[in-house]
Amino acid sequence: MITTSEPDSRDGRRVRGDRARAQILTHSTAIASVEGLDGLTIGRLAAEANVGKGNIQVLFGDKESLQLATLRSAVDLYRVAVIDPALTQPSPLLQLQALVEGWFEFVEKRTLPGGCFINAASNEYRARPGRIRDQVKEHRSEARSRFRGLIVKAKKLGELRPNVDETCLAFELLAYQSAANVAALMGDEEEFLLARQASQQRLAAVRAN
Amino acid sequence: MITTSEPDSRDGRRVRGDRARAQILTHSTAIASVEGLDGLTIGRLAAEANVGKGNIQVLFGDKESLQLATLRSAVDLYRVAVIDPALTQPSPLLQLQALVEGWFEFVEKRTLPGGCFINAASNEYRARPGRIRDQVKEHRSEARSRFRGLIVKAKKLGELRPNVDETCLAFELLAYQSAANVAALMGDEEEFLLARQASQQRLAAVRAN
Repeated sequence: MITTSEPDSRDGRRVRGDRARAQILTHSTAIASVEGLDGLTIGRLAAEANVGKGNIQVLFGDKESLQLATLRSAVDLYRVAVIDPALTQPSPLLQLQALVEGWFEFVEKRTLPGGCFINAASNEYRARPGRIRDQVKEHRSEARSRFRGLIVKAKKLGELRPNVDETCLAFELLAYQSAANVAALMGDEEEFLLARQASQQRLAAVRAN
Repeated sequence: MITTSEPDSRDGRRVRGDRARAQILTHSTAIASVEGLDGLTIGRLAAEANVGKGNIQVLFGDKESLQLATLRSAVDLYRVAVIDPALTQPSPLLQLQALVEGWFEFVEKRTLPGGCFINAASNEYRARPGRIRDQVKEHRSEARSRFRGLIVKAKKLGELRPNVDETCLAFELLAYQSAANVAALMGDEEEFLLARQASQQRLAAVRAN
C-alpha cells in the first residue's frame, strides 16, 4: 500500500544519506591528503568517521569510487576556500594575486592536513594511468587555464605588460606551488617563504605600472 | 674442525649476498619509483626479482629497512648517472649547467620508470614523520647545498653576476624540477619543456658575460 508519507520518508533517507556521505568525505579527504589516495583504506576511514565499513560501501561503492569522490570533495573544498573568494576581486590582476596568495594561505593554515591535494595526487598518480590520474589531469589543466586566462585578461586591460608570456608565467607560479607544498609539510619554512616571495616577485616584475 | 677453505666460503657467501642484494634493489627501486616507497610490497618484489620472500627478509630485515635501502640505492643510481659526470666539468658554471641538464635527461630517458626518486619520495613522505622522511630531507638538503655551493663558486670566479642570490636561484631550479617530474610522467611534454627552458633561461639571465 502506498501511503502519502512515502515521499517524505524517501526524502528523509536521501537527506540522511547526503549528510552521511559529506561527513565521511570530510574524513576521507583529511586522511588521503596525508596518506595519499592509495593509502586511504575503508577500515581506517570507518574507524575515523565512526561508521560501519558496510555503510561506506553502500554509500560509495568500490575503493576507486570512494577515491574519486574524495578527490572531488578536496577540489570542492579548495574552490569554496580559495577560488570563489578570489574571483570576487574587481580586476583580473587582483583575482590572480588573490588566487596565488590564497593557495599559500590554504597550505599554511593546513586547511587540509596534507596541504594541497592536487599537488599531492599529481605526484602520487603521475606514473599510474587510470581514472584517478585522468581526473587529476583535468583539475591540473583547469588550474593552468584559470591562471593563463586571468593573465591574458590582465594584459588586455593594461594591468600586466603586453609582452608577458601567459604560458611561462602560469607554469612558474604553479611550479613554486609544487615546491612549496612539499616544503610546508616538511617543516621547511624558509623554502615555503622563498616560494611565496618568488611568486609575488614574479607578478610584481610583470606589472604594467 | 676449522678448515682453510672456511674464509673462502665465507667470502663466497658475502659476494653472493651482495649480488643478490644489488639485484633485488634494482627491482625495488624501479617498483618504488612508480608505486611509492609505501607501495613497495615484499610479495611483489619477490615475484619481480624472482627470489623468495624469506630471502628478502634475511637480506634486508623489515619493510622500513628495505625502504631505506631502496632510497639509498636510488640516490646512488642518480649520483653515478648525473652528479659524478657533471662534477667532472671544468668550471662551477659548467658543473651547474651539467647538473641541471643531467636531471632533465635522467627523467626524460626514464632511467627510473617513475622519474626522479627524491621528488617522488619528498611528496610521498612530506606529511609522514619518521626515518624515511628524515633521510629524504637529508638528500634534499644535499641537493640544495650542491646548487648553492656551485652558484657561490661561479660568482667568485666571475662566471655569474655578483648580485645573484644563490638561495633564490637554487630554489627556482629545484622548483622547476619538482613541476617537471610530474609533467614528464603525466605525459605533459609541453610543461616538461617549459621547465627545461625556464631552467636554462634562469641560468642564462644571471651569466656575467
